[in-house]
Amino acid sequence: MSRSIHDLGTPALLLDVDALDHNLDVFSKALPGPRLRPHVKAHKCTALAQRQAERGHRGFTCATVREMVGLAQAGLGDDLLLANEVVDPVRLAQLVALDARVTVAVDSEATIRAAARAGIAEVLIDVNVGLPRCGCSVEDAGALAELARGQGVSVRGVMGYEGHVVGNEDREAREAGCAESMQRLLQAHAQVGGDVISAGGTGTYDCNRWATEIQAGSYALMDTAYGKLGFPLRQALFLWCTVISVAENYAVADGGLKSLGMDHGNPSLPDAKLWFCSDEHVTFAPAEGAPVKVGDKLRLVPAHVDPTIAYHEQIQLVSGETTVDTWAVDLRGW
Amino acid sequence: MSRSIHDLGTPALLLDVDALDHNLDVFSKALPGPRLRPHVKAHKCTALAQRQAERGHRGFTCATVREMVGLAQAGLGDDLLLANEVVDPVRLAQLVALDARVTVAVDSEATIRAAARAGIAEVLIDVNVGLPRCGCSVEDAGALAELARGQGVSVRGVMGYEGHVVGNEDREAREAGCAESMQRLLQAHAQVGGDVISAGGTGTYDCNRWATEIQAGSYALMDTAYGKLGFPLRQALFLWCTVISVAENYAVADGGLKSLGMDHGNPSLPDAKLWFCSDEHVTFAPAEGAPVKVGDKLRLVPAHVDPTIAYHEQIQLVSGETTVDTWAVDLRGW
Repeated sequence: MSRSIHDLGTPALLLDVDALDHNLDVFSKALPGPRLRPHVKAHKCTALAQRQAERGHRGFTCATVREMVGLAQAGLGDDLLLANEVVDPVRLAQLVALDARVTVAVDSEATIRAAARAGIAEVLIDVNVGLPRCGCSVEDAGALAELARGQGVSVRGVMGYEGHVVGNEDREAREAGCAESMQRLLQAHAQVGGDVISAGGTGTYDCNRWATEIQAGSYALMDTAYGKLGFPLRQALFLWCTVISVAENYAVADGGLKSLGMDHGNPSLPDAKLWFCSDEHVTFAPAEGAPVKVGDKLRLVPAHVDPTIAYHEQIQLVSGETTVDTWAVDLRGW
Repeated sequence: MSRSIHDLGTPALLLDVDALDHNLDVFSKALPGPRLRPHVKAHKCTALAQRQAERGHRGFTCATVREMVGLAQAGLGDDLLLANEVVDPVRLAQLVALDARVTVAVDSEATIRAAARAGIAEVLIDVNVGLPRCGCSVEDAGALAELARGQGVSVRGVMGYEGHVVGNEDREAREAGCAESMQRLLQAHAQVGGDVISAGGTGTYDCNRWATEIQAGSYALMDTAYGKLGFPLRQALFLWCTVISVAENYAVADGGLKSLGMDHGNPSLPDAKLWFCSDEHVTFAPAEGAPVKVGDKLRLVPAHVDPTIAYHEQIQLVSGETTVDTWAVDLRGW
């Protein structure tokens, strides 16, 4: 049943369906079908993944086993990549039991042996392309692929996330950083073989010409960090809040540290000046000439979409000021 | 069934039962019975609230309606204070329907009229004592109390949170700031009347001599921010992680932005040097002479306990390296 967003309890996540569809269309045009492997960590929502699949992207990227399991159970298991290392035998057994094509990232002898022991059929060799996180050195990639194959595990290719450059606001530097990272990934691929070169994210979707598939997630919803990069994408996700207190030179609304990921800093409120967030509050100075009163509603724009989504049980899909559907954020947890 | 923490899936919240009981005992001794009104926003867990109630603290402080409802349903509704403003008639009706004594903070004509319309029986006048968040001015407190009483709502007294001083690491400055804030609250109380002067938090529990009750929450679990204040409290909450990748000069474990509140910065890992957190990863340089390997487990100490808890479905209660119980974080959401 549709209703006015003014009747929703707050704080609540609003997802503007027109902006969402616009973003999905932009990426489907730029990266058709299997050229895009949407990363579900950004939205953790099988209903949204379904919408991506309907546009021809049948392979998905995940960061957690929970995301892999949830997508498989939702019938979206054509080609699931866990772009993360896991050594827990219980979790690996969960993956093996799925009615889905499952590929797992590995970057060490330990992760390969754990995958082989569990019966994982396919892996990608995860290569460090400049971000100090998971991923083997370029030099070790070939030997690790050989080890995996020796254990009876099929190696589909390589992955390497240029996460240290995707957020660079200087376009030339971002492109140069991407090119450099992908040269490392191609060197590794020459040793590893296989059909897959998986990389990228929202920030490099239009300049990464070397990867066979791009692992982008944030593009669907967007946030203030990616908003600075000037892509033809629209802000689709908002935190809907109620003003609960008004003082002489500031006001307080009911969104805060438990409804917003804060690692990228404060959310934004167009025209107003954000002062600070507390657990369940945001204090801000309203724009001059635009006073607010208790009971007014407002839309905060999250600074970082992924850890924001992870705080919420559901998302309200809205068209203008009317709700269209309620989507469960059903891939939370681990 | 108890099991080794080494068999738990990660990331997982561990709550050391000895440290917890120590912290609860310290506060029960300093603030016996109704002198402490534990704030459940820090733990969002009725099982932990039950443990606080068993020590004689039968009144609780909440930040959300969900917390109020959950405590009442758990049989902990003797005296519940919603220390936050709410104007949503649906949420206010939920409060009125509870089998519990319910008191709500109000700081404006709008919040008083909303409470009265909904049938809320008791309120506290919320006074701004220096933190720019909710709370009326000292000067307005008396008139607001009169307005509430005129609407048939009982005014139990005042509350005012000195949140701008509770984290001050300079003890003298903290005490002076607390004294100044409480002078403002007492001025308001002189106009408002009533038995209750509710204020304080973990950071001022031992110096706030003016409040009739202290609204402390973090003391039970603790974090690195409150850990700096030198109280006789122990770190009780940890994020249990697995090392999933090891490079030459750093390693990566599976805790990150979706399992840790980040507004106070990075978590801590004793002896190691934290580099940065990603959605599902923490990159760190192990301590010299203490290399780690894939599969090793470690305990991160959260920088801010409240928004950390809010990411998790459950807490593992542990004694040493053995699980004792699993507690649901059952007061999440709104």
